[in-house]
Amino acid sequence: MADPWQDAMDLAVAVAREAGAVIRDALQNDMMIMCKSSSVDLVTKTDQKVEELIISSIKQKFPTHSFIGEESVAAGHLCALTDNPTWIIDPVDGTTNFVHRFPFVAVSIGFAVKKELVFGVVYSSVEDKMYTGRKGKGAFCNGQPLQVSDQTDIKQSLVVSEFGSNRDPEVVDKILTTMQKILCIPVHGVRSIGTAATNMCLVASGSAEAYYEIGVHCWDIAAASVIVMEAGGVLMDVEGGPLDLMSRRVVAANNSTIAEQIVKEIKVFPAERDDTSCGDTH
Amino acid sequence: MADPWQDAMDLAVAVAREAGAVIRDALQNDMMIMCKSSSVDLVTKTDQKVEELIISSIKQKFPTHSFIGEESVAAGHLCALTDNPTWIIDPVDGTTNFVHRFPFVAVSIGFAVKKELVFGVVYSSVEDKMYTGRKGKGAFCNGQPLQVSDQTDIKQSLVVSEFGSNRDPEVVDKILTTMQKILCIPVHGVRSIGTAATNMCLVASGSAEAYYEIGVHCWDIAAASVIVMEAGGVLMDVEGGPLDLMSRRVVAANNSTIAEQIVKEIKVFPAERDDTSCGDTH
Repeated sequence: MADPWQDAMDLAVAVAREAGAVIRDALQNDMMIMCKSSSVDLVTKTDQKVEELIISSIKQKFPTHSFIGEESVAAGHLCALTDNPTWIIDPVDGTTNFVHRFPFVAVSIGFAVKKELVFGVVYSSVEDKMYTGRKGKGAFCNGQPLQVSDQTDIKQSLVVSEFGSNRDPEVVDKILTTMQKILCIPVHGVRSIGTAATNMCLVASGSAEAYYEIGVHCWDIAAASVIVMEAGGVLMDVEGGPLDLMSRRVVAANNSTIAEQIVKEIKVFPAERDDTSCGDTH
Repeated sequence: MADPWQDAMDLAVAVAREAGAVIRDALQNDMMIMCKSSSVDLVTKTDQKVEELIISSIKQKFPTHSFIGEESVAAGHLCALTDNPTWIIDPVDGTTNFVHRFPFVAVSIGFAVKKELVFGVVYSSVEDKMYTGRKGKGAFCNGQPLQVSDQTDIKQSLVVSEFGSNRDPEVVDKILTTMQKILCIPVHGVRSIGTAATNMCLVASGSAEAYYEIGVHCWDIAAASVIVMEAGGVLMDVEGGPLDLMSRRVVAANNSTIAEQIVKEIKVFPAERDDTSCGDTH
């Protein structure tokens, strides 16, 4: 059977690599930093430049496709997943890391058809790790197959999460209460490296058993979702049940046993959906 | 003037690289994991094997020198800094990461004469980054000079810390209260990658403005202390004043303005000193 989207995936890999090179160049130079919703919600000229580069490259080959990109949405474009083939793009996942030259910055390119994710590409550009996942065809890092951890004991697990950029005291309190509960299960440890996409790829790689976060956006997790699934992992909502890509909430784990134990500890707080907050990425 | 310890530093670099290769090999194979003080305080055969490798290599060249090594102290050796030239060694900083193949594991080798640190070598072995610092002669990563960030505004800062392996609810509560206070300054973000030595090297590299932790050991921070100082940074106790290497408490920052603001937010909890707890690394 012909593979209708192999060309699209090859393009995503090529464009992600090109975007990563732009990011690495930018890290050598002065950068112009702007704030979005607050002094801790940052964006740079590189975010915008890299998103333009990615979208224009894809449009040349697939002029009828749709796009959801972090910077386009911030500029007022609609954030809606339709049946049309749709590219879901975060040009610089880990913008705060980028600003500080903290060495984890990922290019994230997901692709959905009829609202179903078909493939995902995450390029951790400083580490030069190209993660790919294609529905039904496995997940890889630099060509090596990925497999989640086989751990089923939460007490033997390593968990990744982030504090996020929301500094509302009630939200911070809930984030830290969840971390306290998870630490005291006890788990082996909790790590935060500053990018959702890379965190999820660490779950896919078997280096962490679980990742959870409230406040992420669809462009942070779309591509890595395919990679986690294809590495044998599971995705879940933070209250259990299936992941809703637009809900800004995610649990990714090596298996449902671990995912469900993480779900039990999460103190939920509200986050406005991506598809009802067009143009507002706060 | 002759440089009396250049040979020792060259040996430290060579031995750290060799130790890193053993760690990378071990990451490809099954590992035997043991618990120390609790189910989250881990040690492996590799920790012990790598420490033996490092100490035996150094003893061949410097048979009269003293050693403080994480695994030797765990086995009952004295943890005492005397005037004798002393090597302070953590064979695998980030053992929990190592167990999970979470890709940050450092070999840390510090060297003190007359109780003063002379040089430090931290080899982040998965990343293949060799950090070195020599008192009065600068700090380097893979031969490139390191320089701390010039940021003086804590609100524009990225902070690194760890949750540690103590799961006493009162301690966890204090650790999280400190994180909450620091997050709500607000800072740009808080990151945790799971190794004290690498965290400090990220401060030396300018990727983070500050690192703080209570519960570390002298072998986690000795080598990286020299690297931070030589990159232009400062070291401080968590209640201000000079760092006491044996106190199990550290603030490392790009400058004293940032360090003092971190100190203000830290909720202190007791940690038994390294030099009064011979043979007990808990």
